[in-house]
Amino acid sequence: MNYKMICRTVGNIVTLEGALMLLPALCALCYAEWTVALVFVCAAAAASVLGQIAVFLTRGCDRTIYAREGFVIVGLAWILMSAAGAVPFVICGEIPSYVDAFFETVSGLTTTGASILTDVTVLTHGCAFWRSFTHWIGGMGVLVLMMAILSDSTGRSIHIMRAEMPGPVVDKIVPRVKDTAKILYLMYIVLTALETVFLLFGGMSLFESLIHSFGTAGTGGFSVRAESIGAYSPYVQGVVTVFMLLFGVNFNLYFLLLMKRFRSAVRSEELWMYLGIVAVSMGIITADISSVTSGIGEAFRLASFQVASIVTTTGYATADFNLWPALSRTMLFLLMFVGGCAGSTAGGLKMSRVAILFKSTRRELNRLLHPRAVTTVRFEGKTVEESTCAGVTNYFALYAILLALTIALIGREPFGIETNVTAAVSCFNNVGPGLGVVGPAGNYAQYGVLSKIVLSAAMLFGRLEIYPLILTFTPSTWKR
Amino acid sequence: MNYKMICRTVGNIVTLEGALMLLPALCALCYAEWTVALVFVCAAAAASVLGQIAVFLTRGCDRTIYAREGFVIVGLAWILMSAAGAVPFVICGEIPSYVDAFFETVSGLTTTGASILTDVTVLTHGCAFWRSFTHWIGGMGVLVLMMAILSDSTGRSIHIMRAEMPGPVVDKIVPRVKDTAKILYLMYIVLTALETVFLLFGGMSLFESLIHSFGTAGTGGFSVRAESIGAYSPYVQGVVTVFMLLFGVNFNLYFLLLMKRFRSAVRSEELWMYLGIVAVSMGIITADISSVTSGIGEAFRLASFQVASIVTTTGYATADFNLWPALSRTMLFLLMFVGGCAGSTAGGLKMSRVAILFKSTRRELNRLLHPRAVTTVRFEGKTVEESTCAGVTNYFALYAILLALTIALIGREPFGIETNVTAAVSCFNNVGPGLGVVGPAGNYAQYGVLSKIVLSAAMLFGRLEIYPLILTFTPSTWKR
Repeated sequence: MNYKMICRTVGNIVTLEGALMLLPALCALCYAEWTVALVFVCAAAAASVLGQIAVFLTRGCDRTIYAREGFVIVGLAWILMSAAGAVPFVICGEIPSYVDAFFETVSGLTTTGASILTDVTVLTHGCAFWRSFTHWIGGMGVLVLMMAILSDSTGRSIHIMRAEMPGPVVDKIVPRVKDTAKILYLMYIVLTALETVFLLFGGMSLFESLIHSFGTAGTGGFSVRAESIGAYSPYVQGVVTVFMLLFGVNFNLYFLLLMKRFRSAVRSEELWMYLGIVAVSMGIITADISSVTSGIGEAFRLASFQVASIVTTTGYATADFNLWPALSRTMLFLLMFVGGCAGSTAGGLKMSRVAILFKSTRRELNRLLHPRAVTTVRFEGKTVEESTCAGVTNYFALYAILLALTIALIGREPFGIETNVTAAVSCFNNVGPGLGVVGPAGNYAQYGVLSKIVLSAAMLFGRLEIYPLILTFTPSTWKR
Repeated sequence: MNYKMICRTVGNIVTLEGALMLLPALCALCYAEWTVALVFVCAAAAASVLGQIAVFLTRGCDRTIYAREGFVIVGLAWILMSAAGAVPFVICGEIPSYVDAFFETVSGLTTTGASILTDVTVLTHGCAFWRSFTHWIGGMGVLVLMMAILSDSTGRSIHIMRAEMPGPVVDKIVPRVKDTAKILYLMYIVLTALETVFLLFGGMSLFESLIHSFGTAGTGGFSVRAESIGAYSPYVQGVVTVFMLLFGVNFNLYFLLLMKRFRSAVRSEELWMYLGIVAVSMGIITADISSVTSGIGEAFRLASFQVASIVTTTGYATADFNLWPALSRTMLFLLMFVGGCAGSTAGGLKMSRVAILFKSTRRELNRLLHPRAVTTVRFEGKTVEESTCAGVTNYFALYAILLALTIALIGREPFGIETNVTAAVSCFNNVGPGLGVVGPAGNYAQYGVLSKIVLSAAMLFGRLEIYPLILTFTPSTWKR
C-alpha cells in the first residue's frame, strides 16, 4: 500500500476543490454579496494550503499505484471533498446544521439533487452557484479533472479513473489516461456551454442558465426555483429534456462522432437500448397522464421531461408526478433503477449493466437446458468475458444488499414505506426526488440526523459504484 | 424431448390430484354438505379419468427423461393442477369467478396464502378444507408425492425433484429418489400430525386443527377465521409460532436427527443463520412495538409470531402489523425477501441463497484487491462450486427482473406504491399478506382480473423458483 501517494493525490484533490471555490466567490462578488465572497475565498485558501501541505510532505515519493490505491484514493477524496465543500454553507449561515450542509454537498457532488432545503429561493447567489457547481464537478468526476490538469499522476492513474468512472468496464478512449481525461472534459465543457447558450436564448438570465446547465450536465437536479424547471417556458423545458438525454449517453460515442466514426457510434447496442427504454416509457406515461392534463401535447411534454429526468437520474421536475396515476408513478420508480448509459454522467445501475444482467440470466437458462454446451454472452458485438459477467451479477447482488440495508436503517422514519423506500432508492441511484414526502414538491428536511447520514452514505455508494467506499473501510485493504 | 413421458407424468399428477380431492369430499360428508361432497367426488372422478386416459395413451413409452423434461413436467403439472383445483370452488358457487378461484388455488398450492375472499367464514367445510389442503400438497411438492407413491417413475426422476424442490442445490438424502421422497413425506406427515395434536390440546376443533396444521406445514397461511390465528389463545399462537419455525428448517436436518447424526445437524451454517436472523428481528420488533402494546410480554408474543410467519413466508397474523411503527413494518417487508431455509416448505430467496450471495460479493471485493489470487466461496464447510455461485447470482438477477416486471404490470392498480409493491413482493415470495390494502386485515379482492392473473403467475414463478415456468414457455426447450 502506497500511503504517501494516496496522501499526495488526496492533497491535490483538496487543493483543486479550493481552486474551484473561487468561482462561487467570483459569482458572489458580481452580486455584491461581500460576506459570501469572503467566506468562499477563505475556504478556498484554507483548502489549498492544507492540500498543498500534504503534497509538500510527500514530495519525491514513489508514484506507483495499483488497483487498491486507486479505490482508496477515490473513496477518501470524495469523503474529504464532501466534508470540505459543506463548510461554506455553514459559515455563511445558509444551512446552519453541518449534517444538513454535508447532505446537501454530497447530494451535489454525487449529482443526486436531493435537498434538505425547504425554500431554495432564499439562498444567496454565491451559495446557490456553489451548490449547483458541485453537480458539474461531480458529474464527470473530480479525479478525472485532476488527471486532465496535473501531470503529477503516474502511468497507472487508469486505476483511479476506473474507480471513479461508472459502468461495468472503464477504459481509455485514447492510449494516454491524461489525454482521455482531457478529451472527456473538453466534450463536457462544450456540451455545457451549448446548453447555457440555448437557455440564454430562452430568456433565462446568465446566472440561472449556468445553474441549470450545471444541474443538467452532471445529471444532478438542483434548481434555484421552487417549481424546478416547471417555472420556465415550454421552450426551456424542451431544451433541458434534450440535454438531459444527451448527458445520459456514453461520452465515448461523442468521441466517435468527433473522430467521424459515425457507423461505430450508431451501432452502439447500449445507445439503442437507452433510446428504446426512453421512447417506450414516454409513450406509456403520455397515454397514462393524458386524462389528467389538458391534452395529449401537454401530456407528452410533461411525460418526456419526467422520463428524461428520471432515467438520466437528473431529478428536475416540471410537474408533481407524485400526483400522477399509479402506472406512471410505478414506471418512474422502476426507471430510477435503470439509470443512463455507462460512461455518462448519469447514475443508477446503467444500461449496459442491465443488458449484461439480462443476457447473463438468459445464458443461465440455456445452460440448464444444455448443461454441456459452451455459450458466451455478447454485448456491443463482442464476447463479454466471464469475469465481467460475474462482476456484473455480483455487483447487482451487492447493490441489492446495500439498498436493503439503507431501507432498514431509515426504516424508523415515520413517513410510510412509500416515502422511505423511494427515498433510499432515489438517493442510492443518485436521482433526487422520490415519492410521497420526498416527491418533487417535497424535500428531505424532515429526516432525522442519523437518516441524513445514512442517505448521504447511500448517495456516495451509488455515485462511486460501491467498491471504492467499501474497500476504503476494509482493514485488509490497508495491509502492506 | 420425450413428449410421451411428459404427457404420462402430467397425467399421473392429475390423477393424483383427483384422488386427493376425495378428502375434501369426505370432510363435506362429515358436515352433511351433500352438494359440496358431490361436486368434489365428480371433480375427482373427472380428473382421474382424464389423467388415466393420458397415462393409457402413453403406455409402453420410453421412460428416459433429462433436465429439460424435468422442468417442463413440473411447469405443466403445476399449471394444470391449479386450473383443475379451481373448478370445485366455481361449481360449488363459493368463488363464482373462475379467475378468482384460480388465484385462490394457485395461492393455496404455492403456499402463498393470499386470498381474494372478503369473508373466509362463509366457506363450507368442504371447500375450506380443500383450500387449506392445497397448502399441504404444494408445500412438499406434489411431484415428490407422486414419486413417493408410484413406481412408474424412472431412475432419472431426480430431474423432476430438482425442478420442483426449492433451494440452490437439491440432492437426494438417500441413494434412491423414491426413498428420498418417501422419507421427506413421512417426516412431513409426522410433523403435521404433531402440530394437529398440539392444537387439539389447545381446545381447537379437529377441523380447525387440521386446517391450521396444513397452513403451517406448507407455510401457506389460509385460515378459516377473519382474525387468522389472532382469534385463538396465546397457547395456540405459541404452538403455531414454533411449528412455523420448524417447517422453515431444511428437512435434511430432521433426517440427520433421525439418523442420530446430531453433530452434523447442529453444525449447519444455514440453520444458525436462520435462527440468528429470526432472533435479531424478533428483538428489534419487540422493542419497536412495545410502546403500542400493553407490555413487553405481549410485544414479544406478537413480534415473535409475525417474524416467524413472515420469514417462513407463511403469512398467518395475530396482529394487524399494517398499523405498527415504521421500523417494524420495514423489517417485515425486508424479511419477505429472505425466506426460510433451502429444502424447507418456505418460500422467498432462501437462507442459503442469501448466504452464498453475501459470500460471493465478498469474494468479488477480494478479487478487486488481489486480482491474481484464487479465492473460493465456502458454505456449510464445503467449497461452493463456481457454477453454483454463478447460478445463485444469476438467479437473483432474474428474480429481480421478474419482480420489477410484476410491479410494472400491476402498476395500473390505484392502491399506491406501498400496496402494489408489497403485493408483488408478497406473492412472488409466497408470503401472502403485504402492507396497505393487502395487509393482514385486507385481501386481494379489489385487484382487477389482469392483475390477479399476473399475481397468480408471480406466485407460481416464486414457488417453482422461476426456471421450470420460463423453460416451459421457451420454444427452444421443445425442440427435439
